[in-house]
Amino acid sequence: MQMIDLIRKKRDGGEHSPEELAWLVQGITGGRIPDYQVAAWCMAVYFQGMSPREVRSLTLQMAASGEQLDLSALPQPVIDKHSSGGVGDKTSLVLAPLITAAGVPVCKMSGRGLGHTGGTVDKLESIPGFRVELSREEFIRQARAIGIALTAQGEDLCPADKILYALRDTTATVESIPLIASSIMSKKLAGGAAGFVLDVKVGNGAFMKDLEEAKTLAQLMVAIGKGAGKKMVAVLTNMDQPLGRAAGNALEVREAIAFLRGETAPDLLEVTLALGAHMLKLAGAVAGLEEGRKKLHRLLFSGQGLEVFAEWVAAQGGDPRVIEKPELLPAAPVVRPVLAPGRGFVARMATDLLGRIAGDLGAGRKRKEDTIDPAVGLIFHKKPGDLVEPGELLAEVHARTEEEAAGAGQIVLQAIELAPEPPLSKPLIYGYIV
Amino acid sequence: MQMIDLIRKKRDGGEHSPEELAWLVQGITGGRIPDYQVAAWCMAVYFQGMSPREVRSLTLQMAASGEQLDLSALPQPVIDKHSSGGVGDKTSLVLAPLITAAGVPVCKMSGRGLGHTGGTVDKLESIPGFRVELSREEFIRQARAIGIALTAQGEDLCPADKILYALRDTTATVESIPLIASSIMSKKLAGGAAGFVLDVKVGNGAFMKDLEEAKTLAQLMVAIGKGAGKKMVAVLTNMDQPLGRAAGNALEVREAIAFLRGETAPDLLEVTLALGAHMLKLAGAVAGLEEGRKKLHRLLFSGQGLEVFAEWVAAQGGDPRVIEKPELLPAAPVVRPVLAPGRGFVARMATDLLGRIAGDLGAGRKRKEDTIDPAVGLIFHKKPGDLVEPGELLAEVHARTEEEAAGAGQIVLQAIELAPEPPLSKPLIYGYIV
Repeated sequence: MQMIDLIRKKRDGGEHSPEELAWLVQGITGGRIPDYQVAAWCMAVYFQGMSPREVRSLTLQMAASGEQLDLSALPQPVIDKHSSGGVGDKTSLVLAPLITAAGVPVCKMSGRGLGHTGGTVDKLESIPGFRVELSREEFIRQARAIGIALTAQGEDLCPADKILYALRDTTATVESIPLIASSIMSKKLAGGAAGFVLDVKVGNGAFMKDLEEAKTLAQLMVAIGKGAGKKMVAVLTNMDQPLGRAAGNALEVREAIAFLRGETAPDLLEVTLALGAHMLKLAGAVAGLEEGRKKLHRLLFSGQGLEVFAEWVAAQGGDPRVIEKPELLPAAPVVRPVLAPGRGFVARMATDLLGRIAGDLGAGRKRKEDTIDPAVGLIFHKKPGDLVEPGELLAEVHARTEEEAAGAGQIVLQAIELAPEPPLSKPLIYGYIV
Repeated sequence: MQMIDLIRKKRDGGEHSPEELAWLVQGITGGRIPDYQVAAWCMAVYFQGMSPREVRSLTLQMAASGEQLDLSALPQPVIDKHSSGGVGDKTSLVLAPLITAAGVPVCKMSGRGLGHTGGTVDKLESIPGFRVELSREEFIRQARAIGIALTAQGEDLCPADKILYALRDTTATVESIPLIASSIMSKKLAGGAAGFVLDVKVGNGAFMKDLEEAKTLAQLMVAIGKGAGKKMVAVLTNMDQPLGRAAGNALEVREAIAFLRGETAPDLLEVTLALGAHMLKLAGAVAGLEEGRKKLHRLLFSGQGLEVFAEWVAAQGGDPRVIEKPELLPAAPVVRPVLAPGRGFVARMATDLLGRIAGDLGAGRKRKEDTIDPAVGLIFHKKPGDLVEPGELLAEVHARTEEEAAGAGQIVLQAIELAPEPPLSKPLIYGYIV
């Protein structure tokens, strides 16, 4: 087989055989296919797409290109949740202990990720002492012992995807639905869970801006997972505003703790219950979604979720006193209020821009090598639909210096649009695909 | 400027500014843009095309990326000829001395090229002693002294094109009309001539199989040249059969010498006169095409072309005795006849396949590092329209071994189709574009 023939075939709209895709993935992983040929192939895929059969083959091959986790030592099947990413998305932090409290084990590998804030592991690392690099043995042992464990993705998880993603990122071929679907699902499949709830976010703060495109991606991922024998649901959720009140690593942990104590931002509560109910249903722990929501609601407001969270933090070496004393979490030296310049309803939040501000303050990575500042970020005191009076607190900037805070504050003002009328509200959950 | 932004712009169908293309070409030449980004960009160009303004900018930038020949020391402007390549195309070998004999200087840089046979320099190198690596000084001095000089393209001619072409060749992006046009024209412009006659070949032995596509390419190249202040003509010629009787390096030199002595294959004569008349007209040496054809015809059949050829060979260190004794040229140890299996008209020659046979015998290079065997190749004794009797000589295979000759002979038989009726003839010259 020759790579140029595969490129030409895809360029001309042909369909790769499973053998061709196996050869391709093994060649990428083994470094036998030069970057420039892979890059040209990615661009051909961008234009010509891939059939569901091709995407399935590609995904399975990428999942098999490195370590594949074996979760069979756990007493029950694991249902994992994955989010396509959005600003202020701390759902994993609150869902994991709630699901565990509901009797379903959580045993999750999570990526560090690039973007406006770190990934779930970065957020957890802002808790003093919290260890996210567990050995496979520790990881499984802890999940068996207390029903919950989370570790950073191993270096050897889906090496083919790592190489492919790095190339796509520099060649303007990230935005290809089949390549996005196979990248996400290969890592999920290698993680070893029996089923997945995919949170596909849509809106001005999400990778997918368009509902139809998001549906296409969701359907494709659900089909890939089912083809691999997994239980699958994709939930389409609104990302036209930050989720909850905080964007930033320690700030989000703080919000998660408050949430588990019952101080629940309405949008975060709604998304948490929706995703969690699907997880419990896939796990067979409840008969229907309504039963799942009720169960989670009870576990949340009885404080059982918070108990599990405390146990989890302690098990991974973190300081459980943060739960009572959130001031033990890293805090930014400068906190600057952003005040409403006039009276009006919050009409629109430029969520992408708000994410970028958090990233620029130091909450996220642009490149893999970048260091995250756990303390910095934004707090949103008002959300779309809220009426504000002149001088009222809209948001807070948590920054390293006065200068950075002032600059960020200026842009936050531009990102939050006030209007004389309240905006037309959109649903928070657009629907789900099974 | 960032390469990923240029890739994204082209991917989304945008038009690059001259500044962007200058940055791109300088980045490619300076090795500052990684191969994989250039490859992705080439594939985006394959799908989205380029505007005439973009192609012109790209071409001028590539021409300026390395050495640019200065031919101002010659007494008259030089008109160069370029062929897009076909099987048995030895037109340059016979045109150069005829044009010189007509009083127009020939001062030509020529590439070695990949393909079924070598380029013009490889063919000339089969003459014992012939030196194709002239210093710039020798080159200009000889052209001034005897009106004709030919040298291999310098290493520093269009380095941006070299890098780009090598990448396109391995990423299935050769077949992009704007990239083909800019690759050809950048080298031509750097060669310093005042005008160009482009022989754009169309047919089953040419890169362009389709007349409309060939016209598009021809128009684009003419426009690029005119935009750079050059005199331009493109002639569309038929390549549904090998041109003349030989395909192979020394075999073509032998045919060229015979041609200049008056033993002219009709198709080679027609193409030579057509292209040559345009060259003389562009040079201002004749008033019209008919006058040009007559002049060349007279110079050919009076033997003056052959005289110039002899002088040329001697000037570049070649053994001029080859003109009287062609047996001094390298000869293959095995010559195997291919005989007609039955009675019929030659209906079709699979010219691409015939070229590939010559290449596989050793007449061409697949990669730049390959060595050419000057002696091997094919002789075509019959051409489309000829009636043959069973057992009559169709072709000859000139090979290194009996085994190679036998294998090649089998395939030649498949490549020459006999039929009870003569084929519909197509014109040899489809037309020209100014």
